[in-house]
Amino acid sequence: MPATFPRGFRGVTAHLGVKESAADFAVVVSEVPATSAAVFTQSRFAGPSVTLSRADAPLHGSRGMVTVSGNANVANGAGGVEDAVELRRLAAELAGVEPAELLVASTGVIGRRYPMERIRAGVAGLARPLGEADFAATARAIMTTDTRSKQTTVTCGDAVLTAVAKGVGMIEPNMATLLTFFFTDAEIPAAELDAMFRRVMDRTFNALSIDTDTSTSDTAAVFANGLAGPVDLAEFEQALHRAALHLVREIACDGEGATKLIEVRVTGARDDAQAKRVAKAIVNSPLVKTAVHGADPNWGRVAMAIGKLHQETDIDPDLVRIHFGELEVYPAPSTEELLAAASRHLASDEVVIGVELGIAGGAFTVYGCDLTEGYVKINADYTT
Amino acid sequence: MPATFPRGFRGVTAHLGVKESAADFAVVVSEVPATSAAVFTQSRFAGPSVTLSRADAPLHGSRGMVTVSGNANVANGAGGVEDAVELRRLAAELAGVEPAELLVASTGVIGRRYPMERIRAGVAGLARPLGEADFAATARAIMTTDTRSKQTTVTCGDAVLTAVAKGVGMIEPNMATLLTFFFTDAEIPAAELDAMFRRVMDRTFNALSIDTDTSTSDTAAVFANGLAGPVDLAEFEQALHRAALHLVREIACDGEGATKLIEVRVTGARDDAQAKRVAKAIVNSPLVKTAVHGADPNWGRVAMAIGKLHQETDIDPDLVRIHFGELEVYPAPSTEELLAAASRHLASDEVVIGVELGIAGGAFTVYGCDLTEGYVKINADYTT
Repeated sequence: MPATFPRGFRGVTAHLGVKESAADFAVVVSEVPATSAAVFTQSRFAGPSVTLSRADAPLHGSRGMVTVSGNANVANGAGGVEDAVELRRLAAELAGVEPAELLVASTGVIGRRYPMERIRAGVAGLARPLGEADFAATARAIMTTDTRSKQTTVTCGDAVLTAVAKGVGMIEPNMATLLTFFFTDAEIPAAELDAMFRRVMDRTFNALSIDTDTSTSDTAAVFANGLAGPVDLAEFEQALHRAALHLVREIACDGEGATKLIEVRVTGARDDAQAKRVAKAIVNSPLVKTAVHGADPNWGRVAMAIGKLHQETDIDPDLVRIHFGELEVYPAPSTEELLAAASRHLASDEVVIGVELGIAGGAFTVYGCDLTEGYVKINADYTT
Repeated sequence: MPATFPRGFRGVTAHLGVKESAADFAVVVSEVPATSAAVFTQSRFAGPSVTLSRADAPLHGSRGMVTVSGNANVANGAGGVEDAVELRRLAAELAGVEPAELLVASTGVIGRRYPMERIRAGVAGLARPLGEADFAATARAIMTTDTRSKQTTVTCGDAVLTAVAKGVGMIEPNMATLLTFFFTDAEIPAAELDAMFRRVMDRTFNALSIDTDTSTSDTAAVFANGLAGPVDLAEFEQALHRAALHLVREIACDGEGATKLIEVRVTGARDDAQAKRVAKAIVNSPLVKTAVHGADPNWGRVAMAIGKLHQETDIDPDLVRIHFGELEVYPAPSTEELLAAASRHLASDEVVIGVELGIAGGAFTVYGCDLTEGYVKINADYTT
């Protein structure tokens, strides 16, 4: 029988004074060397946490991470880089590993320096050696405006995979999401781990959009310490996909102000890439998002969102079919009965919008949420 | 002294029963042949009003337009095309011109057929010949959810130019905006009119975004009947630009739920096209729009929005400067005083966000509005 959590990960969470009260510091590291893979934001304003971690990522030898929440340490110039380097050194000393073996991640307000005095004093006071990693506490410690922590555990033979994530706004990841970390005791060669991690991220975290805004701090990483021995790689990739998809759906449901998950399934495209562009245009349309919020069966807005992609000259409105849940709403005649049934589907917690383009076999599914007054309220008054 | 309005335009507005009560039908035509230029939505779901008008546009001989508001006549299949052809024929008979001399424009809900019985009966009852065009009534008759009509008049020598526009949501025009029509008695050769109209539209209506959603019905057209004789073309282009910019600012202020105009001025770009991409990324960011709504001097969100353009590898965060109004907020140190002053600027009716990229001389300015609870309320319950 597999363990409850992956074996051989140590860690700590703490409140060091970056946030007012809640935990704002987390370290998780493997006791033994591990293979790793990671993807990062492509933002031109990526902060030093990302640039530092990205520099070491090709080594595929990260044993874990240190995360600070409540302050993204972005747009702070040379001082911000020094702070990130010092943070990594302090965490590495605490964990008994080399600085280059630790990813640094950071999330929160942009343009403010870390309170380094408090961080130094806080880390100095933490017990060593680190105890067994507490993944539930880690999931809580990396939160910012999340209303709930996101964590999942799956197994693959004897191996266990536990993953945590955070993120509610500024979310349209491009190669990664805000912060998500996968820890496993499976033994997986670095090259295979890297390839499978990118494939899974592309169909899960890169298929998620809360508000079209891309964070400066997105980081996704997997650490595999091998203590459970080898696994079937195909089976492990499925488990990794299941865990990632679970977190993506959790994040979409917890999107800032969100009341519903929206899943947009595009089929019949020229290729998967076209399907993804169409699906993203729909899930990102504020008019589609507000119609779903109001359970308004206004399929014309879905047609509008598809129509925006004017470069896609092989999309023919006469071949397109639009579904809300199981119901075809276009080109079916818009009877009162049909619209009432469509409205009932839109009133549910998980709304599925299906679009068949009638061109070829390309398909892609993306995940998002509705746009509500709550989103505006949360974001009209965040820093001050 | 020039006339108050351009000479030689006849027209009518009426309530035919497309909307519940307000005027929903407008015709304006030149008494004499005119030159014309027009640009249209690039939506793949463009309706028959657009496809019909676009087919005749290259003739540059349109004498005016017929507009129906309250119903976009989009996604109605072959029946919708028949309705558009009949509407144009009825309006042409009413105006005493050839159908091919009339642009057809239509705006409102998608996916519903026109009430053709009511339109036929209504048009049959209108007085002929048409009286002098009433531009104020025309501006009102083309409205949908607009809270106020948009109209402006400028002069150029003896010639007069009057323009009307409508639009509050589903607005990120691509080559055109929702509906805007320019009428002038200047004499302008068709080729010059077409070239100058496209130049002006690119810097005005194509620089406007309310919500990133592109309408299926966008149409912009200018009609020049020559009754005031020739004009200085450069001077006329300036007048046209002034009129268009006035309407763009009116539309941005009246954006669905909007409480403020946002103007984003990007300078120092590699070229104007790059400046436009950066400006659009900022004006379309929901996190920037909500920060402006809350007068929150969160310039980190402007940095984030710039950073989203990861393909723009020549953008260097260390060279970027961000201004709110006259105030540099990045990389200037974020003192309490500075943030308070920035917040005061963001609390005004017209917010200016300036970004200097420090690369070369490219510049572009775009126009938009804040994102408010009102936008969500209006759009969560529109058709039903």
